[in-house]
Formats: sequence, C-alpha cells, structure tokens
Amino acid sequence: MPTPCPTIAVFDSGFGGLTVLRALLHRIPGAHYIYLGDTARLPYGEKSQMTIARYAVEAARFLASRGADHLVIACNTASALAMKEIVAAVPIPVLGVIEPVVQMTHYKYPLAETLILATTATVRSHAYRMSCEARGLLPIEKACPLLVPLIEEGWTDHHVTREVLRIYLKEALAVCSPSVVILGCTHYPLIAPLVRDTLRELGCNAEVVDSADATAFVAATAFAALADATTSTRPPTFECYATDSIEKFQRLGSNFLGQPLPEVHLIDLGG
Amino acid sequence: MPTPCPTIAVFDSGFGGLTVLRALLHRIPGAHYIYLGDTARLPYGEKSQMTIARYAVEAARFLASRGADHLVIACNTASALAMKEIVAAVPIPVLGVIEPVVQMTHYKYPLAETLILATTATVRSHAYRMSCEARGLLPIEKACPLLVPLIEEGWTDHHVTREVLRIYLKEALAVCSPSVVILGCTHYPLIAPLVRDTLRELGCNAEVVDSADATAFVAATAFAALADATTSTRPPTFECYATDSIEKFQRLGSNFLGQPLPEVHLIDLGG
Repeated sequence: MPTPCPTIAVFDSGFGGLTVLRALLHRIPGAHYIYLGDTARLPYGEKSQMTIARYAVEAARFLASRGADHLVIACNTASALAMKEIVAAVPIPVLGVIEPVVQMTHYKYPLAETLILATTATVRSHAYRMSCEARGLLPIEKACPLLVPLIEEGWTDHHVTREVLRIYLKEALAVCSPSVVILGCTHYPLIAPLVRDTLRELGCNAEVVDSADATAFVAATAFAALADATTSTRPPTFECYATDSIEKFQRLGSNFLGQPLPEVHLIDLGG
Repeated sequence: MPTPCPTIAVFDSGFGGLTVLRALLHRIPGAHYIYLGDTARLPYGEKSQMTIARYAVEAARFLASRGADHLVIACNTASALAMKEIVAAVPIPVLGVIEPVVQMTHYKYPLAETLILATTATVRSHAYRMSCEARGLLPIEKACPLLVPLIEEGWTDHHVTREVLRIYLKEALAVCSPSVVILGCTHYPLIAPLVRDTLRELGCNAEVVDSADATAFVAATAFAALADATTSTRPPTFECYATDSIEKFQRLGSNFLGQPLPEVHLIDLGG
C-alpha cells in the first residue's frame, strides 16, 4: 500500500518564506505543500508582539483547516514572537526557523561568536540570543530594518544596498568579531553574496548561514512521519495563498522560490 | 452663546498624517482633533486597492463613531484609492489630501509641468495624474517605494537617503522638466530640504510643495462650519489613537507633529 502523501504547510508574512519552501522541496520532495504569505499585513518586522501573534495564529488556523499535517513557520519574526501562541492554537507539529538554524550552527561551529542580522521585532524579542546562549554560542544581534524594503525594491545587487549593509555591518563589527553570521530573516538569502562581500571588505571572514536549509534539514529529521517523503521520487505538489498583492507575489516570488510559482490564490484572514 | 467646538478627525495609515494635523492646528486652532494611525497594517503604499479601501473604511467608521464632524484623510494612498468608499461609508464631510494640493498648486502655478513623488499604490492609481490633467497641469508621476522606510529609520538627513533620492529624481528628470514637485506622501515633508537640495544639484529649480498646508487651507475654506474655529483663540485639544506600535508612534510622532504628542491610545480595528 503506498504511503499517503504528507501535507506540509509553510507560513510567512510575505514571500521571503519561499526560500524555506525551496529548501524543503529539495530535502523532502515527496510531500504536498501549502504556502501562505500574509501579504496584506506585511511587514511583521516592525510590529508589536501582540499583533504579530494574532496574525500568525489566524494564519496557522487557516493552514490547519486546509489539511496540513505539519506546519513550518518560515518567518523569523513570527518564530521569534509567536511560537507559543501558534503551538497552542493548532493540533499539529509546528517548527519555527530559529531553533533549527541555531541548532545547526552550533553543530558546525560550537562556541562560535555569532552575529545575527534580523528585523527590529526579531532582535527586540532576543529569541536568537536566548537560543544561542542556551547552547554556548556567543550571540550579537543587529537590527537591519532597511534590508527588507531594499530587497522588495529588487535592489539585491545595488550600490545603495551595499552601502546600507556596510553601515549596519560596520556598526556590528565595532562590537564583535564573529566567526558566523546568521541571516535571521527569510528575505536576506537574496543578498547573501552582498553580505559575504561586505564582510570580507570590512576584514571579517565569518561564514554566512541562513535559516532555509537548516530548517528543511531539521524538518526532515524531526517530522518522523515524513521519512518516506524524503526519499520519494514522486515530484512535490504545491498550492499557494496570499492575503493581498497576488501580482507582486507572482512577480517577486519566483526569485525566492528559484522556480516559477503555481497560481497564487487570494484569501481573507479577516484583517 | 458660544459656538460648540467642532471635532475634526484626521486619519492616516501611520504617523505621516501628523504633518497634516500640524498644519490643521495652525489653520484651524479652535477645534477638537482626533487622530488615528492604522499602524498595525501600515504601510498601505504597496497594497492593493481592495485592501486599502477596506482598511480605510474601518478607520473612517471608527472616527465617525467617536463623534467626528469632519474627516480629513491625511494619507495620500487612501486618498488616491479609497475616497469613494470612505464617502459612502460615513455621514460626515470627507476631505482627502490629493485634490487640495493639486488645487492649490494649480492656483499658484497654472499649466505647470508637475512632478509627483509618491508610493507605488498612489502612482498606480493615477489619482494625481487625473486630478492634474483635469486642471491643465502637466503631471509626471514617480513611485519612490524606499523613501518611507528610510524616513522611518530616521535617516532624514543621511547620505543613503540622498543617494536614493538622486536615483529616483534622475530617473524622473530624464523624462520631464518640472516647475513644481509635489510630495505626494505625508512622510515626505520630513525630507523636503533633501529633495530641494537634490533637485538643485541635478539642475532643476522646481518649487517643492506638500499636501499638509494645502489641505489645511482647503479644509478651513471648505468646511464652512469651521469658520469660527479658524479665528478662535481657544487652544486646540486632541486625542490620539493607533492600532499598534504605541511606543514607536510616541517616539517618531513628535517629529512629524512638531510638538510633543498627547498620550496615544491603542485600539483594535479587527484586522
């Protein structure tokens, strides 16, 4: 009897989480995916904990109601500020992006001085700091509020983005000498080469890691029921939802996913 | 018998509209003001018409329920995309920011070539273009999506903001030679000096105008019932509401208002 195909739901405030979906498609090809971007209410990164938790819980409930067996919160801000509320709201296993990337960073570089670049809300939550400290990593958090708008403008290889990065990284490197830099926002993988270049230019040889592959790796390991799907040769299937801006989603989303997007359906979470 | 004090409600997606409130306090000092910033769902500038209209109508209904006699939509994006819906939703006179600034620009500079800097959604609506063309002004619209995040970062006099402005203005001046530049977003008055400098640097001597004073002037004229309040010596009173980020509102808001903010109350518009 063939194993039933598991359904993995992936949630983000926008389309940045498609970088995580991309890694999941690679690590767990034999699953059915439901992606939801809460584009009507993005960005989450500058909002309060209470509002972020309310939005994330509504999204999680929608995805559970669509038949998800597993839920990946592919949004650093929601992972930092709303995990407890999401876990309490839905009856399925939930995985955020922060624990996996810290866990895998610690596995590879125990005791490393670690610089975390993230949104204001993620930094303010100190979720990365607490997770790193619990494992013996030495964390320094740096809020980079302009990077998301610059990436959404499409300026992923632009001298202005380079200059903004230089300013943020200079400020961070004035107080630490990291061996690892975590891209603590799912938008940032699109400027990973720029981050690497700018670090070198500033005399820092740190390794740059992002949450996408670490999360996919931990998902494939942690969701035991997915074991068959990791070795399946059946191609993944997926459906895509957004709460606004279907056109922009369709246009920018394929850069994040690394392949054309399926049709994006508009839904209303009541906000 | 003393004239009862009129209540003027001012709505924006965030605190940019405080620049309009500031001009209203100056032009119509004898009124009671209610300000609402829909900070949980900002920025409106990159969202769809349908979503913007829904959010703006919820805000307008809240303000009408608080006893507003007049409503000023101090948000270019909502003025561009949701005026019809707002007017239909509340039983009080409503004034947006686009008609006043175009009207006063035309009064001062009839037939001028006019460059409008605005958010993506405002530009996409072509509300400025239609309003200018109806009066014989020659409009050119330019979307500047990075300016709001840069201003919210506090970089109002920063070389990166200057460079981003240079890029946007260079692109615009390649296709027009304006005599007037309208700042079509209530955030932009905070970088008006930078816009002026950059225009000069690029060889353009256009006058820079914003919607704040034009809107206050037209409000004082159009809302006939406010006549007494324009000459009142009674100091204005005001109350302030936001849907999120009270702390940020309080911190940045006074820059926009030009004076300390009163206590900001958190409300829930259900989004």
